[in-house]
Amino acid sequence: MRFSSRVDISAPNPIAAAEAACKRCGVTLGKLNDSNPTRHGLAPALVPEIYTADPRGPRAAREALAAFLTRDGQQEHAVDPDRLYILSSTSEAYSWLMKLLCDAGDAVLAPKPGYPLIESIARLECVDAIEYQLQFDGSWMIDIAELESLLSDPVNGKRIRALVLINPNNPTGSYVKPAERQRIIDLCRAHDIAIIADEVFYDYSLEPFDGNARLAGETGVLTFALDGFSKMLAAPHAKVGWIYVSGPDDDVVEAQRRLDVIADDYLPMSDIIARDIPALLDAASEQTAHVQQRVRGNLALLHQLLDADQYGLVSVLRAEGGWNVLLRVPSVIDENELVLTMINRHQLTGQPGYFFDMTSNGYLAISLLPEPDEFASNVQAILDTVNTLLS
Amino acid sequence: MRFSSRVDISAPNPIAAAEAACKRCGVTLGKLNDSNPTRHGLAPALVPEIYTADPRGPRAAREALAAFLTRDGQQEHAVDPDRLYILSSTSEAYSWLMKLLCDAGDAVLAPKPGYPLIESIARLECVDAIEYQLQFDGSWMIDIAELESLLSDPVNGKRIRALVLINPNNPTGSYVKPAERQRIIDLCRAHDIAIIADEVFYDYSLEPFDGNARLAGETGVLTFALDGFSKMLAAPHAKVGWIYVSGPDDDVVEAQRRLDVIADDYLPMSDIIARDIPALLDAASEQTAHVQQRVRGNLALLHQLLDADQYGLVSVLRAEGGWNVLLRVPSVIDENELVLTMINRHQLTGQPGYFFDMTSNGYLAISLLPEPDEFASNVQAILDTVNTLLS
Repeated sequence: MRFSSRVDISAPNPIAAAEAACKRCGVTLGKLNDSNPTRHGLAPALVPEIYTADPRGPRAAREALAAFLTRDGQQEHAVDPDRLYILSSTSEAYSWLMKLLCDAGDAVLAPKPGYPLIESIARLECVDAIEYQLQFDGSWMIDIAELESLLSDPVNGKRIRALVLINPNNPTGSYVKPAERQRIIDLCRAHDIAIIADEVFYDYSLEPFDGNARLAGETGVLTFALDGFSKMLAAPHAKVGWIYVSGPDDDVVEAQRRLDVIADDYLPMSDIIARDIPALLDAASEQTAHVQQRVRGNLALLHQLLDADQYGLVSVLRAEGGWNVLLRVPSVIDENELVLTMINRHQLTGQPGYFFDMTSNGYLAISLLPEPDEFASNVQAILDTVNTLLS
Repeated sequence: MRFSSRVDISAPNPIAAAEAACKRCGVTLGKLNDSNPTRHGLAPALVPEIYTADPRGPRAAREALAAFLTRDGQQEHAVDPDRLYILSSTSEAYSWLMKLLCDAGDAVLAPKPGYPLIESIARLECVDAIEYQLQFDGSWMIDIAELESLLSDPVNGKRIRALVLINPNNPTGSYVKPAERQRIIDLCRAHDIAIIADEVFYDYSLEPFDGNARLAGETGVLTFALDGFSKMLAAPHAKVGWIYVSGPDDDVVEAQRRLDVIADDYLPMSDIIARDIPALLDAASEQTAHVQQRVRGNLALLHQLLDADQYGLVSVLRAEGGWNVLLRVPSVIDENELVLTMINRHQLTGQPGYFFDMTSNGYLAISLLPEPDEFASNVQAILDTVNTLLS
């Protein structure tokens, strides 16, 4: 596996080498230069913890998280807390992983249709996001032949360093299927690139299918799986995300050696948050179930409302998971006109298909999160707008 | 002022333009695609807040911080909460500002002697850190002629996009002097580069001097001043830092337009932390005073111990502020040998001058934070090691 040259992993100086040797022998050294005030009785009463400055995040929080992920049955084997990096968000995780894998001008592959956040973060990291297509033929699938062609003969000779898989993808709601998965892993191994698997919506299945599994913990190729409290707990404002590193042992060791340097430069996790992590994990299952119920209920309601509409001009694309679905509206309606009319008539805005680089006109994304009354009113506003524009 | 091309500030699409127009007219639009669960009654009990996803950080926290900075007399004029960005750390702030100002291969100027963290962060951002020297002649001063030469005729034709000032610098403990300050601001304005002023140690003066003032709030040139709870509150584990933007109005507006895009991609501030920010600010003055007392007490103790040493081989360089001082040891002792001997004899490690790119041999940084007993024992260990190596 090839990594970027952004991370300085030059040989330790003699002092750092001696410190490491002492640590291996269990000798704890004092530090003349210790500028951590919490070790010297100076921490404020509100944050009385002794700061350990662990690059991967506070040990107790990682242990609680590893136990949760193991208990939750997300993983076949026990999750090792040392394979976890707790940080503020998946955005931050993308940023760290691009630094780890990509030099300036290198590229990652990202799915389309998809949210434009990945391109924006890639651009901030001097990295190109090259799109690969999901195709819809009643359900969404990854165009593996195109993936293979992009990897074998990249546009402009770009060095592709990672494949981003969003599982399930947003807003298409499509999971990586077991058959796709094996071919993708083989492809990534053959081309020596890592997988970044964003699985924040994984637990929100709308239509489960056989043989589905998280990419987290995949051993066939170096895999960085991302998840967090934003979706699992419906708590985007908690700012807790994580990276779970897996793959062939040698790749994992080398990746973590470098990721530790990045993590140590930023040390993003607050002890104020960390002390709440065990209690938040205790609430996770209930929260996921609560949101799951809302999302599934609204999807059923959506089908009812669309079926009941006398004009029958709007349908919903089959979604397998997540919080959003795509509506299909008559493609004779311009997507901007649709939303601008909705703003004027209903003080309601939205994101049409071109926001996500859908390859054709006539789509609108809709969130399944609102309370059912508000959700029904949103759907009625869309139907009213479409029916008005076509009448 | 020139900014990087990393930030996408392309013209808004018609929908975003219509949304902005509604906002200006005070019309609140519903959002079909709202995927913020906290707005739909789904937030967990532990974080019941409604997430506002403000790129600059939660409004109430910024208002509390602005009021604190104004009340604290840090600023001549009232601090505008809209000029503040609250984030996790000054490391993150450096990272954002390099993205804002530097394309891949551009450079920032950073002081030496200094801590190597800035080079490491710059490298992660595909940015070069070019050093400029502080010179010691009884007190430290910035070599302005060298700065001028670096800016007029940069090494390898590098485009220099910012000057990093650490005020006071670490580990030299030297403040930017009033006379230096005006020349530096003139230089930066003439060369159209921004100042990144890291003022985390500002309140820890050891030897105040006339006319000293924070760079935060400087209006002569675009200035990003960094500070945080890590030093102010002795709470590195709280993970609260901020950027305060000032300078000519046009530059500030354009900088914030772009910085908002970066901040919006990461949204690092947790509502779990934000709710503690007002109480933490209430404790700030007392915490700063408490640490100040420790640091000043240990500096006095250091002078006593060095004066009392019969060999008189170790002295302390005059420091004006901060938590660390530099000891001068006989330059015939190899710095690695010094620390390795200390590890062997006293299980005590440290950072000698070459860690900070001191231009000559014979220095050792020492923290003034430990409890006085531990501090005295650290100093005695150094004296013992030096005296042993020279006996």
